[in-house]
Amino acid sequence: MPHEVSIEASADAAGANPITVEVTRGGVVESRHRGAAAIVDVRGQVQAAWGDIQRPIFPRSAIKALQALPLVETGAADAFGFDDAALALACSSHEGEPRHVETAGAMLAACGLEESALECGVHWPYSQAAAHALAIAGQAPDQRHNNCSGKHAGMVALARQLGIDPKGYTDRTHPVQQRIMGVLETLTGLDLARAAVGIDGCSVPTWAIPLENLAFAFALFGTGEGMPDHRADAALRLRRAVFAEPFMVAGTGRFCTDFMAATAPRVFVKTGAEGVFCAAVPDYGLGVALKCDDGAGRAAEIMLVAALRTIGVLDDVADETVRRFIERPIENRRGTAVGAIRPAAGWLSF
Amino acid sequence: MPHEVSIEASADAAGANPITVEVTRGGVVESRHRGAAAIVDVRGQVQAAWGDIQRPIFPRSAIKALQALPLVETGAADAFGFDDAALALACSSHEGEPRHVETAGAMLAACGLEESALECGVHWPYSQAAAHALAIAGQAPDQRHNNCSGKHAGMVALARQLGIDPKGYTDRTHPVQQRIMGVLETLTGLDLARAAVGIDGCSVPTWAIPLENLAFAFALFGTGEGMPDHRADAALRLRRAVFAEPFMVAGTGRFCTDFMAATAPRVFVKTGAEGVFCAAVPDYGLGVALKCDDGAGRAAEIMLVAALRTIGVLDDVADETVRRFIERPIENRRGTAVGAIRPAAGWLSF
Repeated sequence: MPHEVSIEASADAAGANPITVEVTRGGVVESRHRGAAAIVDVRGQVQAAWGDIQRPIFPRSAIKALQALPLVETGAADAFGFDDAALALACSSHEGEPRHVETAGAMLAACGLEESALECGVHWPYSQAAAHALAIAGQAPDQRHNNCSGKHAGMVALARQLGIDPKGYTDRTHPVQQRIMGVLETLTGLDLARAAVGIDGCSVPTWAIPLENLAFAFALFGTGEGMPDHRADAALRLRRAVFAEPFMVAGTGRFCTDFMAATAPRVFVKTGAEGVFCAAVPDYGLGVALKCDDGAGRAAEIMLVAALRTIGVLDDVADETVRRFIERPIENRRGTAVGAIRPAAGWLSF
Repeated sequence: MPHEVSIEASADAAGANPITVEVTRGGVVESRHRGAAAIVDVRGQVQAAWGDIQRPIFPRSAIKALQALPLVETGAADAFGFDDAALALACSSHEGEPRHVETAGAMLAACGLEESALECGVHWPYSQAAAHALAIAGQAPDQRHNNCSGKHAGMVALARQLGIDPKGYTDRTHPVQQRIMGVLETLTGLDLARAAVGIDGCSVPTWAIPLENLAFAFALFGTGEGMPDHRADAALRLRRAVFAEPFMVAGTGRFCTDFMAATAPRVFVKTGAEGVFCAAVPDYGLGVALKCDDGAGRAAEIMLVAALRTIGVLDDVADETVRRFIERPIENRRGTAVGAIRPAAGWLSF
């Protein structure tokens, strides 16, 4: 369990988290995002904190890599021949580009199942190019195009490996979700039976976990510390898979893909809906977890890079590269820069 | 100039605006939006305020109806035969659906101009159906598909009516923008030469204006009070055009269209980027202006309906109708309600 040792910026007297990201236009601040972030080491010591890191938040898709641990540690991934691309897809929120969709389909086929075994629901690919290509081909999306299809194919594979009927695998009481819940409890040090639980967009349960516990879990995930060997091996294999196949974890033009392509193997990063980000920094033995209060992904990305810069892990990365991720221009429809999204005061500046 | 008489909820000791909208999941609050809102009468008296309504904000597209006043009051709209649909489009941020695009093209043609006269830039239609239809037809979007094309066609028409070369009409120093700036100064009571100015997504200038002054301007726009007759007539004609053609001001499934279709002619409403909303309540002689601090449109919509409810203007609207706009379910990808977006404490509850 994490124990707090230092606070970089605390919630103010009225309980508001600090302003972490500013959106500028015409040289003035147009919009402001608030949030909280925690950096925690493998002993559970809080190394840095911004805002309230003890309030439980729904981690959503930011913990897909933790949800994928049972897939590897039970031998399911080996049994069904999942390669790095498949394992990275199991940890992904993808754009529904052809390689994502084909890989999800191949994972299901390896389990002897079809698209109908998924319970994630259908939406058009996030990728505009992929969506238009589908429309032009006269096709409609199916569940393989859902951004969570890789995680779900992994859950179905886990059920098969355990000899369980995959049907209902998204229910909180299904053995697949119970197995995952147990892993999350071990890594976060929490009794999740006492936690608030919501239903994610893809129908699986999401348990509310404080940022400091999430960051602690990612410190462990990044190092394999405090785990039995088979789980440490699974964590290492998932990290290597994502670093080898960053395209599979998100897609063209997406932050997770581009940031890991530029910085691997320094930092494992994963976004979640409603402004969540988690990261593991293996060489430093640190985990990071953050949430933008209002749920904005544009702010969560900036917060993540700003937090990572404070611990020096990006010092060896070219300034231009870091700047590309930490300060994003806002352009008008003719391509002229008219503003920027950037860290607010309180983070280390360039 | 507005004078403040009552404050419903002020910024807290640390200067943070109040939490105005909550996003729930699994029965707990997952994300929180803060913001400010002003309700002002035709004498400039602040009737209600939430948060800091004196900080200047960029109104963005929320003032398109004010920007369209010169189009009507100069006689340009009559000269080029603009009907209600064209006038509503001049006040719109539209989805790029076929009728929007055709109307923008017809407005240009009436001026003897083509799409190339626009300076708003190109983006794919916001409407997914329209975008897919375009892709299926093997076509790419042009500037008529830009959500601001109606406003721009109106600006081009204004230039023609004034006998000015439309080229460069998006520049702050062009006579078209100067004419609009003059109208905005008159309605807000501000010297905008001293205001911060940014460039909007569609390349026109956007001047920073406090919410109380914006609300005052919309109280005048909604009533014609404090205006010369030709401007009051223009305001009435624009309001009637939008109430008659709510589809043209936004499009299928969009808040502005659906809300005005359900409530006209009680309230004129218009959204702007980065969480802005403005409204006029003609029968009450009131204007409303608000901004969600973090720029979220989902929160600005809820704030608007919550603010309107406090003044009783929706009392005659069926509860189910109001509820549809003030509390929006969040569904997972299988259509199950898993949460909601709703007003935070501090607004009148149902």
